[in-house]
Amino acid sequence: MLTADNQQERLDPRWVTGFVDGEGCFHISINEHQKMSMGWQVLPEFRIVQHSRDETLLKKLQEFFKAGKVVVNHGSRKELRIRKLDELNQVMDFFERFPLMTKKRKDFEIFREVLNSMNRHEHLTREGLERIANLCWMMNRKVKPRYLESSETLRRKSLEGD
Amino acid sequence: MLTADNQQERLDPRWVTGFVDGEGCFHISINEHQKMSMGWQVLPEFRIVQHSRDETLLKKLQEFFKAGKVVVNHGSRKELRIRKLDELNQVMDFFERFPLMTKKRKDFEIFREVLNSMNRHEHLTREGLERIANLCWMMNRKVKPRYLESSETLRRKSLEGD
Repeated sequence: MLTADNQQERLDPRWVTGFVDGEGCFHISINEHQKMSMGWQVLPEFRIVQHSRDETLLKKLQEFFKAGKVVVNHGSRKELRIRKLDELNQVMDFFERFPLMTKKRKDFEIFREVLNSMNRHEHLTREGLERIANLCWMMNRKVKPRYLESSETLRRKSLEGD
Repeated sequence: MLTADNQQERLDPRWVTGFVDGEGCFHISINEHQKMSMGWQVLPEFRIVQHSRDETLLKKLQEFFKAGKVVVNHGSRKELRIRKLDELNQVMDFFERFPLMTKKRKDFEIFREVLNSMNRHEHLTREGLERIANLCWMMNRKVKPRYLESSETLRRKSLEGD
């Protein structure tokens, strides 16, 4: 029988897009990080979470994208997690060629904007970081990035100081 | 921009398989039903649930399968629901041509066995119904169909009566 377990051939790219439309997640976080020049680190991440019974398939997806790691997500769930900028650039190229069909495509487009900003090293400037934080807020909708809260506080303080 | 909203062309079958590997659900229930000859009704169902923001895509999937209805699932969630036996037979043909890649494929195979039993009208006999109930139990794993509980009770009673 032809299943993901014993199938030798490569996954079909349209199947991959369909599966990611269902199960993929584009996510960006901005965390405080003393060692970064701005004091904040931008962490873009693409992941696909599955029950561990489909770990073989996650490994096939890892092989397909030639990127990421298959790690424990939570309990009996595993995830293919891609975090390296160069690998995410490859993922971005793939979804430009094989576009997502659900509204997840909007998340992907914001994600791509952030990656392109990072490719131009804009996350190392205050303006760039603020722009990225706003994109990140658009993407996660409800949750305002801590960076924005923090930078507003700083701005208010510096105005008070004037 | 080419999105599900304005895209004119038909969905790609491999995309559909990938999406269903993520989001589709094969389900069988066996309900008490006075009007059925055996007193029980077998209800196979295939559904794809999405947030209502992707209702357009559910309608495209309905068009793709030429089957089912797009209805409210729960709150802001909608579903494409396919219940008619002839339409489910078409769905079954599709997934034979474009096989699922996740472990969901096992559910599909059991689902197909139940559909084939129904195509042969076996659900109208006691033996057939019991076989279907056992397949159904394999598929839903944790939940034992009420029919089996009930038929065991009946058997025990008839043995006690002997």
